[in-house]
Amino acid sequence: MLAEVRGLQEECGVFGIWGHEKAAELTYYGLHALQHRGQEGAGIVTSNGQELKLHKGQGLVNDVFKRFDFSKLGGCAAIGHVRYATQGESTIDNVQPLLFRSQTGSMALAHNGNIMNAYELRGELEEAGSILQTSSDTEVLAHLIKRNGRMDSISGLKDALRQLIGAYAFLILQEDRMHIALDPKGLRPLSIGKLGDAYVVASETSAFDIIGAHYEREVLPGELITIFNDGMETTRFASEEKRALCAMEYVYFSRPDSDLNKVNVHASRKRMGMELFKEASVDADVVTGVPDSSISAAIGYAEASGIPYEIGLIKNRYIGRTFIQPSQELREQGVKMKLSPVRRIVEGKRVVMVDDSIVRGTTCKRIVHMLKSAGAKEVHVRIASPAIMNPCYYGIDMSTKKELIAANYSLEEITEMIGADSLAYLSSTGLERAIVSDDSLEQGICMACMTGKYPVLKNGQLEIAYTKC
Amino acid sequence: MLAEVRGLQEECGVFGIWGHEKAAELTYYGLHALQHRGQEGAGIVTSNGQELKLHKGQGLVNDVFKRFDFSKLGGCAAIGHVRYATQGESTIDNVQPLLFRSQTGSMALAHNGNIMNAYELRGELEEAGSILQTSSDTEVLAHLIKRNGRMDSISGLKDALRQLIGAYAFLILQEDRMHIALDPKGLRPLSIGKLGDAYVVASETSAFDIIGAHYEREVLPGELITIFNDGMETTRFASEEKRALCAMEYVYFSRPDSDLNKVNVHASRKRMGMELFKEASVDADVVTGVPDSSISAAIGYAEASGIPYEIGLIKNRYIGRTFIQPSQELREQGVKMKLSPVRRIVEGKRVVMVDDSIVRGTTCKRIVHMLKSAGAKEVHVRIASPAIMNPCYYGIDMSTKKELIAANYSLEEITEMIGADSLAYLSSTGLERAIVSDDSLEQGICMACMTGKYPVLKNGQLEIAYTKC
Amino acid sequence: MLAEVRGLQEECGVFGIWGHEKAAELTYYGLHALQHRGQEGAGIVTSNGQELKLHKGQGLVNDVFKRFDFSKLGGCAAIGHVRYATQGESTIDNVQPLLFRSQTGSMALAHNGNIMNAYELRGELEEAGSILQTSSDTEVLAHLIKRNGRMDSISGLKDALRQLIGAYAFLILQEDRMHIALDPKGLRPLSIGKLGDAYVVASETSAFDIIGAHYEREVLPGELITIFNDGMETTRFASEEKRALCAMEYVYFSRPDSDLNKVNVHASRKRMGMELFKEASVDADVVTGVPDSSISAAIGYAEASGIPYEIGLIKNRYIGRTFIQPSQELREQGVKMKLSPVRRIVEGKRVVMVDDSIVRGTTCKRIVHMLKSAGAKEVHVRIASPAIMNPCYYGIDMSTKKELIAANYSLEEITEMIGADSLAYLSSTGLERAIVSDDSLEQGICMACMTGKYPVLKNGQLEIAYTKC
Amino acid sequence: MLAEVRGLQEECGVFGIWGHEKAAELTYYGLHALQHRGQEGAGIVTSNGQELKLHKGQGLVNDVFKRFDFSKLGGCAAIGHVRYATQGESTIDNVQPLLFRSQTGSMALAHNGNIMNAYELRGELEEAGSILQTSSDTEVLAHLIKRNGRMDSISGLKDALRQLIGAYAFLILQEDRMHIALDPKGLRPLSIGKLGDAYVVASETSAFDIIGAHYEREVLPGELITIFNDGMETTRFASEEKRALCAMEYVYFSRPDSDLNKVNVHASRKRMGMELFKEASVDADVVTGVPDSSISAAIGYAEASGIPYEIGLIKNRYIGRTFIQPSQELREQGVKMKLSPVRRIVEGKRVVMVDDSIVRGTTCKRIVHMLKSAGAKEVHVRIASPAIMNPCYYGIDMSTKKELIAANYSLEEITEMIGADSLAYLSSTGLERAIVSDDSLEQGICMACMTGKYPVLKNGQLEIAYTKC
Repeated sequence: MLAEVRGLQEECGVFGIWGHEKAAELTYYGLHALQHRGQEGAGIVTSNGQELKLHKGQGLVNDVFKRFDFSKLGGCAAIGHVRYATQGESTIDNVQPLLFRSQTGSMALAHNGNIMNAYELRGELEEAGSILQTSSDTEVLAHLIKRNGRMDSISGLKDALRQLIGAYAFLILQEDRMHIALDPKGLRPLSIGKLGDAYVVASETSAFDIIGAHYEREVLPGELITIFNDGMETTRFASEEKRALCAMEYVYFSRPDSDLNKVNVHASRKRMGMELFKEASVDADVVTGVPDSSISAAIGYAEASGIPYEIGLIKNRYIGRTFIQPSQELREQGVKMKLSPVRRIVEGKRVVMVDDSIVRGTTCKRIVHMLKSAGAKEVHVRIASPAIMNPCYYGIDMSTKKELIAANYSLEEITEMIGADSLAYLSSTGLERAIVSDDSLEQGICMACMTGKYPVLKNGQLEIAYTKC
Repeated sequence: MLAEVRGLQEECGVFGIWGHEKAAELTYYGLHALQHRGQEGAGIVTSNGQELKLHKGQGLVNDVFKRFDFSKLGGCAAIGHVRYATQGESTIDNVQPLLFRSQTGSMALAHNGNIMNAYELRGELEEAGSILQTSSDTEVLAHLIKRNGRMDSISGLKDALRQLIGAYAFLILQEDRMHIALDPKGLRPLSIGKLGDAYVVASETSAFDIIGAHYEREVLPGELITIFNDGMETTRFASEEKRALCAMEYVYFSRPDSDLNKVNVHASRKRMGMELFKEASVDADVVTGVPDSSISAAIGYAEASGIPYEIGLIKNRYIGRTFIQPSQELREQGVKMKLSPVRRIVEGKRVVMVDDSIVRGTTCKRIVHMLKSAGAKEVHVRIASPAIMNPCYYGIDMSTKKELIAANYSLEEITEMIGADSLAYLSSTGLERAIVSDDSLEQGICMACMTGKYPVLKNGQLEIAYTKC
Repeated sequence: MLAEVRGLQEECGVFGIWGHEKAAELTYYGLHALQHRGQEGAGIVTSNGQELKLHKGQGLVNDVFKRFDFSKLGGCAAIGHVRYATQGESTIDNVQPLLFRSQTGSMALAHNGNIMNAYELRGELEEAGSILQTSSDTEVLAHLIKRNGRMDSISGLKDALRQLIGAYAFLILQEDRMHIALDPKGLRPLSIGKLGDAYVVASETSAFDIIGAHYEREVLPGELITIFNDGMETTRFASEEKRALCAMEYVYFSRPDSDLNKVNVHASRKRMGMELFKEASVDADVVTGVPDSSISAAIGYAEASGIPYEIGLIKNRYIGRTFIQPSQELREQGVKMKLSPVRRIVEGKRVVMVDDSIVRGTTCKRIVHMLKSAGAKEVHVRIASPAIMNPCYYGIDMSTKKELIAANYSLEEITEMIGADSLAYLSSTGLERAIVSDDSLEQGICMACMTGKYPVLKNGQLEIAYTKC
Repeated sequence: MLAEVRGLQEECGVFGIWGHEKAAELTYYGLHALQHRGQEGAGIVTSNGQELKLHKGQGLVNDVFKRFDFSKLGGCAAIGHVRYATQGESTIDNVQPLLFRSQTGSMALAHNGNIMNAYELRGELEEAGSILQTSSDTEVLAHLIKRNGRMDSISGLKDALRQLIGAYAFLILQEDRMHIALDPKGLRPLSIGKLGDAYVVASETSAFDIIGAHYEREVLPGELITIFNDGMETTRFASEEKRALCAMEYVYFSRPDSDLNKVNVHASRKRMGMELFKEASVDADVVTGVPDSSISAAIGYAEASGIPYEIGLIKNRYIGRTFIQPSQELREQGVKMKLSPVRRIVEGKRVVMVDDSIVRGTTCKRIVHMLKSAGAKEVHVRIASPAIMNPCYYGIDMSTKKELIAANYSLEEITEMIGADSLAYLSSTGLERAIVSDDSLEQGICMACMTGKYPVLKNGQLEIAYTKC
C-alpha cells in the first residue's frame, strides 16, 4: 500500500481563516481534521492587525498545543500547517508556518507542495547575499518576495510566484491581509469556504465540516486571492489551464469524508472498488480491505460482487510513535505490529484482499502471508489503482524507478513474489471513471506516476527539471 | 451509544503468560490488543521464579512503557492489566496489577470485573486489624487469601474466592505459579491459548492474534486453573452452571476481531444488523453506522437490505486526551468534537443510522441533529440491541434507572426527543440469535440490563445485594 | 568527606503544622528548608478535619510540586517529608508521608530515622495475616498501631512505639489530631515552634525561619505530643534519659543556619575549626574548606590561626541530577565534576584544607591530588571531627568496618594514602566542646561512630540487635 | 545587590574549542562553569570539518542536554553559549549559537555583549532585501559578513566587525576554522587556553579549570584570531588602545574562582572588603555577607577589621525556576524566598552587612529589615563598589537614571530609606586598587556606570549613540 512511501513524500496540510475572533482556536480544530496529512510538526500564526504571533512545535497538533492558552495568540486571522517531514531535516526550524519579521512588517507562510527548482533559486539568492535559515522550500518564496520589494506589493508577490516551478498551495499571512495561491496546474487540493462572514481555506473540506463552515469553491489553478478586512481580491499569475489534480489524493492521501474538486473521496473509492470488480472479478467467499484507506474500495467491490464484506484484517489503533517495535526474533514468532488478521473470518475461506496501491510490494507480501497463516484458503489481491511505474516530481518522491516493483517485474512475477493466488490492478480509465463525476467533467487529474504522462509546465522547463532530478 | 456510560463502568483487560522467555514483551503487545478496554492505567508484573517485578503507570500502554527496557522486568511469566477508572480514585495506587510482598513470598493480582460485596468484606478485614492500601476491589481478594493462611495454598485461594459475589476474571501471579479464576456464572470473558509451549490467557482473543498464539479454550464458570512449571491443574470452586456471558461484550465492549466464547464479535454484530433489518426495515437511500463500534452492524443492515452502505459519519482519530475541548460558544457555532457528518454523502438523502445502543439519548440526539444539519432528508435510527431499561450490578453501573431514557419514556417519546424520523431497537430474541452460533448453543448470555432477568448467584445472595446497592 | 556515605544512610526531613489555613503551602516552604536532608522524594498530607489528602512524588520538592495547585490539598493541618533513599527500594510507594485509609478513619505517617528491629516486627505482622505494602520501616508502626486497636487511641499508640528499637522522629496525622514522637534517646533532631496560633514541628529550625515561625522548644526523648484543635497534650512512652543527639548532625547533615538542641550549627562548626587549630596547628599560607559543609570550620581555623581564609576549591552549583558524568577518559584528562581547584589561589602555596570527615578516604585523596595539580606546594588536611571507626546502627549505615579507612589504617598510612603532607583529626573532646554550649550542658551527644560507645536502649536489647545486623 | 538588574542585562557566556576529539563534551563541561552567566538557554555547534551540527534549547545546560548523546554532534571543534535573556524575545530562535547554512558553507556565531548600533544596521540590511530571523544582535554580524562576500574571507570579516559599535566577544565557527574577536576596548572578558594541543577560549577561566586546561593569555582589544587545523593566525581590526574591562565583572558577574585579565575574582573581592574597611570602619560584633557574590568581600572586611565573619544570612539553594512564589499574604506573614536570616547569629548583635552593590535599593531594604526582624541591634550596610549613578550602554541596561537610587537620593536619604544604621560605598579609587594587581597595571577597567566616564569609541560615534539611546 502507499503508506510504504510515506517516508519519502512531502504532503502537508494547510488551513487559514480571516475575520473571526476565535481564529486561533478554529485553526486548531481545522488542523485536527488535516492531521493525517502530516504528523511531524504543527503550527499556527495569527494576526491581530498590528503584529503576527506564532506557536509551533514538533509532533501532533495535540502535542504541540497541549494545554495551550489561545489567548496568547489572539487575533482575528490565522494560518496553520501540519507537516510531513521529507528529505529536509526534521527540526523545529522547518516546522511551518515560517514567520519573517522586519522593521516594516511581518509575513508568515504555510505551504503544501514541492518546489522543483528550489535548489536553483536558493543558490541564486545566496549568491546575492541572502542568508536562508531553513532547508524548506517555503523560505525561498519569502526571499523572492522580499527581493521584489516591499512585502505588501501584490505585483511583487506575483513576480515571485512566477519564478516557482512545481506543485504548491500557499497561504501567506501579513498584518493586514492573507494571500492564497495555487500552482498553475492545480496539482494540490485547496478549497475556500465561509463561516458566517469569515473566509476559510483548507487543503481538504473535512476541515470545514469540523468547524461547521460551508464550502464555497475551489481555488483555481494559477489563482492568487488576497483577503483584506473589506473583502477579497482575485487575480491570476498564470494563464488558465486544465487542472491536473493528483489522483493519489483520491486513492490514498485524503480523508474519505473530504470532497476534492467537488468529488467525495469515500464515494470515489467505493467506485474504484466497483470498477475493479467489473475489470477483475473472482470467485470468493469474503471481501476484506487493508485498513484504513482501502476499506471504502473493499466495500465497493463487495457491493458490486455480492460477496460479503468482512473485517479480515484489523489495525491496532493505539500503536503510536512511542510504540516499542518487536524484535526480529519476536516478529518471526508471529508478533504483529500494526495489522492483525482475524482468524475466525478468514480460516478456510477464499479471500479477496483489496488494497489501494502497491509500491515496493513488501507490505503486500506480508499481508498475504498473514492471511494465509491465519488459514485463508486463497488470497486474491485487488489493487484499487493502476500500477505505479514512474516517479512523481511534484511531491511524492518515489526516488528511483528501482524501488517500484511494477516498473521492474511483470504481473505474473509480482503475483508470485507476494504469494497471492491472483493479482489485478484497476486500469487508468477505470480510475478516471471512478474519480471524475458529472460535476467536474472538464477538470482533469494527474496520473503521471501510473501513466508516465506528465502535465507540461511553463515553456517545457518541467521536462528539463525531470531529466535533472 | 454505549460510549455514553463509559465513565460509569468498570471494564478492564487482563493478560497473562507462563513459560516464555520474552514474557514481559509479549504481555506488552497483548495489552495493546486490549487497550480499548481501559486507557487510564497499565501495568505488568513478571516472575523469574525467584521474585516478582512490577512496572505500572497511568495512561495508555505506550505512555507507561515509553522507551521501557524490558530487561528490567525479565522473567518467564507475566501478568498485565489495562484499567478503566470508575468510582474508585484515579491514582497510581489503584493501577493494576497490585503487588503484595511478604517475607515468605509475593503475589500479584490483575482483575477484570466487579465484586459486589467488596465494601462489606473490606469492613470485616479492617475490623480484624488489616490495613488496605487501595480503593480497589482487587486488594480485598489478596487480604482474604492472606487471612486463609499461606499464599501458596490452593484450598485457601478457593475459600477466598467463595467469599466473593460478583462478576470477575482474576489472574494471580506468584513466584512459582499463576492462578486463573472466573466467576461462577462466567459473566466476564476469559480465554486460554498456547504460544509454542507457553500458556497464555486474555480477556479477548485479539491479544492472542497480535502475538501469534493459538486459541485453546474458554476458562469455565467457577473454574480455578493453576499453572506451574511442570503443567497446569484445574479445579472448581463453584458448582457447574449455565454460563451468562455479558451480551454488551458483543454489542459494544470487545474488539470486532475477538472471539468471545468462540463467537466472532464482528460476525455477531453483522448478524445483529441483519436481524435488525428483518425486524425493522425501512425505505432509504443510504445506511451509515456510528463509528467505530456500530460499523459492522451497519454493514449487516446494508447487506440484508440492499441499501448501499456509506461513510456518513466520520470519527476524528487524532483527538486524544490532550485535545482542547471547544467552548460552549464554539460548539454552538458548529465546531465538532469526535464525530463529523459527511455532507456530500447525506445531503438530500434518506439515511438509516445504525448505532449499538442508547443509554441517556443525548449522544444519539446530537448525531441525528448533525446529520440533519448536513442536509439529510430523513434519519431513521436503528439500534443493534434492545432498549437498556435496568441497571447492571456486575460492572457496568448505569447508576440509577433515572438516567436510562428507555426506562422512563416510550418509543414514540424517545423518537421525538432525539429528532429521528423513526426509531427501532433489536429485540432480545434477535440479539440472542445474532450472538449464539451453533458452537455455543448450550452457553447462555446475560441480558439483564435489557430484560431485567438477572442470573441468580449463590443461595439467593445476589438479590439481596441488588437491593442494597 | 561524609558525602561519600550519603548513599548508604537514612536521613530524612519532616515538617508538620497544625492550625493554619495555608498549612499545605507553608509545609511546601518548610520542606524547601529541609531539602538537603533528602532529594529522592517529597510529599505532603493535609487534613481538613474530615479527610486526609496526599500529594507526593519522586525528586526534589520543586519537581514534585511543579505548578501544583495547593487548593487541591486544602486543610488547616499538614505533615510533609523529604526522603533520602537507602537500602529500601527507590519507588514511589516508599516516598512519604504514607497514607492509610480505613472505613473508620485515616492516618498518615512521616518518619526520620531507622527502626532497628523492623525486620522482626514485619515478620511477626505477616505471620499474623497482615499485608505490608512498602519496604519502609514507617509502615511497620502503622500496622502496630492498627493491631493495638482503633487508630485514635493514644495508649495504643504508646504501646506501638514501645515495640520500636532505634532512632526515630515520627509525625502522625489523623483527621482530628497530629502526633509527634521522638525516640527514647533523642538521637534525631526535632523542634517545636509557633507561627501565630499555629503549631509547627520540624527536623531543623531552618524550616521555622523560612516561614517566619518562632522556635519554642525541643521535643524531648521519649515524648509523645498530641495536638488537637483545642490544644496540645504531652505524655511519655519511655522513662526520662539523658539525650544522645547524633553528633554528625552538627558535623555534616544539618544546615549551618539551623539550631539543634539550641546550638547553632554554623557556630558549632566554626568552633570545631578553632578547636582543630588548637589541637593541630601548622605553618601555612592559606586555609581553604571543602564546600559546602566544611566552610564554617575552615573560617574558624583561619580566624584562630590568623592564616587568611581563601576560596581554594569551588563547587559547581549547577550540576544536578541530569548532569552527564564525564567518561573515565575525560576524567583522566582532568575534567572535574563537582569540585574545581582555584589555581591562582593555591599555586605555590602551603594550603590547609579543612574537611568535615573522612569515611573511605577516596574523596579526600582526590581533592588533595586536585590541589597539588593546581600547584599547591603543601597540602595539610585537617578534619573537623574524630576518625570514624565504627558503624552506626541508628541510621547512618556505614555497612561494615571494612569500608572505614580509619578502622583499618594508621594515621601515617592514611596520610600517605591520601597524598597529604600532614593529616590531623579533631579529638572527641574537642568535638564535644565545640558542640555543647552553655545552654545545653546537661544534654549529651552520640559519638558512637567515632568512640564506639553506643547509648544503651531498652533492657540491653540494643546490643543484641547490633550483633545481629 | 546587582542581582536586582539581572532582568535588564545582556550578559552571556561563550566557550570554544578547536582540535579535540571530545570537543562537544568538553564544551558541555565548559558551559557548566559559565552557567551563572546565563540560564535561559544553551547550545553547542560542532564542526567535523565537513559540516556543522547544532543542538540548543531553552533552560539550563543540564536541561538542554538531558541524556544527550554527544555522538550526535561529533566533530573536533565546537563553540557553545549560555544565554541570559534581555529585551529580545525569550524564544528558542534567539538561543545561541546561531547557525547559518548556505550552499557554499555554514557559519555559527556565539556572542557575549551588546551591539549599540544593531537597530540601525538591521534597518540597513532589511532595506537592501535581507530577511533577519531573530531579534538577536548576533544575527546582524552574520548578515554583514555575508554581504561582504564569501563567508571564508578574513578581510570581509574584519570589515563587518568594524561596522559594529559596542562591547562584544564573538566566537564564529565554520567548517574549517574558528574566529575569535573582542571589541576595540576589551570591555568583555575573553581568555585563551590550551588543553594538550587543542585551543580553548572562554568568557571566564573557570571553564578552563573544569576541563583541566591551562590559561595562555587574554584576547586583546580589537584582536581577531583565526584558528585552522594547522595553527592560529592573529590580526587586528582596530588600533591598539588601553583596555577598559567592565569592573562589574569583578564586583558581581564572574565566578570567584575565575581570573579576569589575570586577576582572581575572589581575591579582588576580598581586597574590596579590605579597602572598604579602611574607608568605612565601624564598631560591630559580626560581619556577614549577602550570598553568594558578597561573601568574599565580607571575609575581607572581617579579616581586615578583626570582627568575626559569621553566616548571618543564608541562601536557599533548591529554589529553582519551578519554585512556587509565596503569595503576598504569606510574604507579609514572614515567608522568605531566597534568603533567610540566621536568628541565633544576629540576635542582639551589631551587624556589618556587606553587599556588592545597590541598584534600586529595594532588595537592600528587604535584607536590612530581615536582619532587624531577626533581632539585630544595629545593621551597618557596607557596599563593596561605588554608587551606581549612570546607565551602562555596553550591555548592562539600567534603563534610565530614574531607577538608580544613588542617582536620585543622597547618602543620608538612602540610609534612611533602607532602614540601616549606617551606609557606606567603596570609593572608585578603592575599587580600582582592589582590582588592578601588579600583573595588569597598564590595563584599565571601565567604571562608567559609577563615574560617568565612558571609554570613547571610534571617532566619537559612541557619544552620539549614547545620546540617542
